[in-house]
Amino acid sequence: MKKGILVVVSGFSGVGKGTVVKELIKRYDNYALSVSATTRPRKLNEEHGKDYFFVSREAFQQMIEEKALIEYAVYVDHYYGTPKAFVEEMLSEGKDVILEIEVQGANQIKKSFPDAVTVFLVPPSVEELLSRLKNRGRETAQEIEARVERAKTEAQSMGDYSYLLVNDQIEECVKELHAIVAAAHAETIRNEEMMQKLYNELQI
Amino acid sequence: MKKGILVVVSGFSGVGKGTVVKELIKRYDNYALSVSATTRPRKLNEEHGKDYFFVSREAFQQMIEEKALIEYAVYVDHYYGTPKAFVEEMLSEGKDVILEIEVQGANQIKKSFPDAVTVFLVPPSVEELLSRLKNRGRETAQEIEARVERAKTEAQSMGDYSYLLVNDQIEECVKELHAIVAAAHAETIRNEEMMQKLYNELQI
Repeated sequence: MKKGILVVVSGFSGVGKGTVVKELIKRYDNYALSVSATTRPRKLNEEHGKDYFFVSREAFQQMIEEKALIEYAVYVDHYYGTPKAFVEEMLSEGKDVILEIEVQGANQIKKSFPDAVTVFLVPPSVEELLSRLKNRGRETAQEIEARVERAKTEAQSMGDYSYLLVNDQIEECVKELHAIVAAAHAETIRNEEMMQKLYNELQI
Repeated sequence: MKKGILVVVSGFSGVGKGTVVKELIKRYDNYALSVSATTRPRKLNEEHGKDYFFVSREAFQQMIEEKALIEYAVYVDHYYGTPKAFVEEMLSEGKDVILEIEVQGANQIKKSFPDAVTVFLVPPSVEELLSRLKNRGRETAQEIEARVERAKTEAQSMGDYSYLLVNDQIEECVKELHAIVAAAHAETIRNEEMMQKLYNELQI
């Protein structure tokens, strides 16, 4: 079976990464979503192994030491990381694995998975981003300002991603993300085996 | 308006390039097919400016001297080439221009259009290619053998293309080619303007 592709999706906070990724996975059957490990307590509506792998701080430390995580970071005193085994299992089953991840984590990934396809999601404009954040009504004005400050830092890394995807219409954006992954499967560098087969058949 | 992308489509002769490209253009409205110039006589069913630009040998020579062709070659005593002006006009109108072209021509193109997306079309197997050629019934056994010999030479260049596309089911193949072009539009290197706009809006 042909190996799947690791797809890293980052983007400004509030740009709609979660919605786009959820819709992509719902619509096409070639994807698997990576499940993160975390030391933060499980919320009532969360499921172990689906939303997160909930582990103790000791278990997380051990995963770090055993290099069982392909990236990890600390937020608000809790650890979050991506277990390597799960990702590799999915890839070898031919699934394209989506990793919705921050800029920092993406940099770690690229070191261990240089073949990963990296996509940075942006809003059509900063004005539109602000208006989405305000309409969502989840954050205070102060929190929104903090998000914009964070976007300024995140923006510095846009150029490090292979693709810059504008999330204007969600429908269109999901289709484009799927096209990016479909195209990646056809990249010559991922089709050495096919080339070798044709060389052999042509007796070159 | 965002500039179009130059898409070079090559592949083994008999693999179905023409059919795939025709279907792509029929199905989506973002494409334009490049029209070649040639010194060979016009056939009855051919239209000047649609099938080819039919020109005299002197006119063709002049185009070469004026560097008005982005590639050209000689087959069976006649010149064939791609007029630069037509391609550039279509690109600046935002059309993605498809260039169905031989391996040699593709190498010339890459020099003047390093941003071109290059796709090499292959059959699922050499056996399948042979069976298609035989079923088509247009060639003698000897001509088919000559095509296979040519495929051996062409195969040496597969690795120089960005994409290797298998033409198994035409429907699927057209979709994949379209995905490759859609993905190319999202490449970060083609979206410097968008990045700059966001930098400005974020006041970085």
